[in-house]
Amino acid sequence: MSADLAGLSINVATIRQGETFGAMVDACLKHGITAIAPWREYVTDLPEAARIVRENGLRVTGHCRGGFFPAADEAGRRAAIEENRRAVDEAQALGADCLVLVVGGLPPGSRDLPGARQMVADGMAELLPYARQAKVPLAIEPLHPSYAADRACINTLKQSLDLCDALGDGVGVAIDVYHCWWDPELEAQIMRAGREGRILAHHICDWLVPTTDILNDRGMMGDGVIDLKAFRRMIEAAGFHGAQEVEIFSNRWRARPVDEVLRTCVERFRTAC
Amino acid sequence: MSADLAGLSINVATIRQGETFGAMVDACLKHGITAIAPWREYVTDLPEAARIVRENGLRVTGHCRGGFFPAADEAGRRAAIEENRRAVDEAQALGADCLVLVVGGLPPGSRDLPGARQMVADGMAELLPYARQAKVPLAIEPLHPSYAADRACINTLKQSLDLCDALGDGVGVAIDVYHCWWDPELEAQIMRAGREGRILAHHICDWLVPTTDILNDRGMMGDGVIDLKAFRRMIEAAGFHGAQEVEIFSNRWRARPVDEVLRTCVERFRTAC
Repeated sequence: MSADLAGLSINVATIRQGETFGAMVDACLKHGITAIAPWREYVTDLPEAARIVRENGLRVTGHCRGGFFPAADEAGRRAAIEENRRAVDEAQALGADCLVLVVGGLPPGSRDLPGARQMVADGMAELLPYARQAKVPLAIEPLHPSYAADRACINTLKQSLDLCDALGDGVGVAIDVYHCWWDPELEAQIMRAGREGRILAHHICDWLVPTTDILNDRGMMGDGVIDLKAFRRMIEAAGFHGAQEVEIFSNRWRARPVDEVLRTCVERFRTAC
Repeated sequence: MSADLAGLSINVATIRQGETFGAMVDACLKHGITAIAPWREYVTDLPEAARIVRENGLRVTGHCRGGFFPAADEAGRRAAIEENRRAVDEAQALGADCLVLVVGGLPPGSRDLPGARQMVADGMAELLPYARQAKVPLAIEPLHPSYAADRACINTLKQSLDLCDALGDGVGVAIDVYHCWWDPELEAQIMRAGREGRILAHHICDWLVPTTDILNDRGMMGDGVIDLKAFRRMIEAAGFHGAQEVEIFSNRWRARPVDEVLRTCVERFRTAC
């Protein structure tokens, strides 16, 4: 592998073409990539996945995902905590840098966004002692405001960091350029996140113009309008020097061969990030 | 007309089924609606439109739109100022409460979002004396972050109000529920806007789940997840008691007869807002 690729991680959502976890890892290794981020649904055999990680000396830059705390009733909220504990266990077994949280949106039928946000804070407070015990940092990923209703009601870095402040140790943020690039307070809040030791992950892709599907039309780095180099400089100035993790949900890229996707990720990581 | 409908305005984007301005006004009047907001492209004959407004005693809750200040070069930025002056003239002729500004996004080929934002501030500062002279308030409409690249790089109420503070008198905000409902600082910034006398318009529609097209899949009030009644209470608590202006960009509603759209607007205004 090329030394510079130590700064590149591949989130398996970028190459979810129906492969097994082992096949995904092999594809990454072939391109000199030794850091990955799994999604839970691709880790169907946890001991086997942990063995693959260990034997190949892989870095796991995050395990996706916990979260989805809000629910219509107490039973639903309890079930979410239990599910999150299992996700913490998996992240621990894989040696992941953090468990990424997509915190969840409005419960079905609800229009109470402040209420949903309170459920997230309450759910995280309840999960946190378990995660601390397991030494698995919880990474709040603020999602783009487009997802406030159905995926995550935490939508800005500032909001995430305020929640971190309220929760204390063991929590931080996963900063994804797609979700945060538009934020007028971006630089100030990245600096704050660094100062408070909260940056746990740095996800990259690009924002296409036009974006034809808000979920599955994310761009390859360099194909959109995000100033990725400036973004990286801010993150580094804030003291985070971990890998940049490529997470591209895209119907277009999903239709391409995995090798082509990975070759392009490596090339763009070197030229556009 | 029913007295309560004085609080309802129809933005013509909601009924842009290929009608003339006069026909749109007639359709509104038939439903007891006496407040409207035109888009410039539907005001093809300004004196005639002004006559229609005057003779029917219509309230014009805003003229859409000025803005689009960023451009790739100085000539482009100058042309934008000239175009905005014409929009101010039209708003004045129509007796509009304000000229709504969709401020513009990144110039073609640019990834410099802070630079685009500076162009907006500079363009507004240059336009403002002309607008003040004409007694036409300029209403910054912060657009949803989804539009940061291609329509408006001003994306939150806070950012808009900070810009208002820098510019001084004669500017304010158009608060559209679709663009702002997700904002964690919504209530605080609405209260601030009221305190500073900056609320110039209140636009309503709804956020559908799922939203299949970020531009043209806005919902009829009550069909989505925005707590419109809570939103209205905040706006009123902040001291704004002007009309709620229905602005629904929707391929679905555009395919329906204008009478059905307006009947539904009236019904939902009474039950869901």
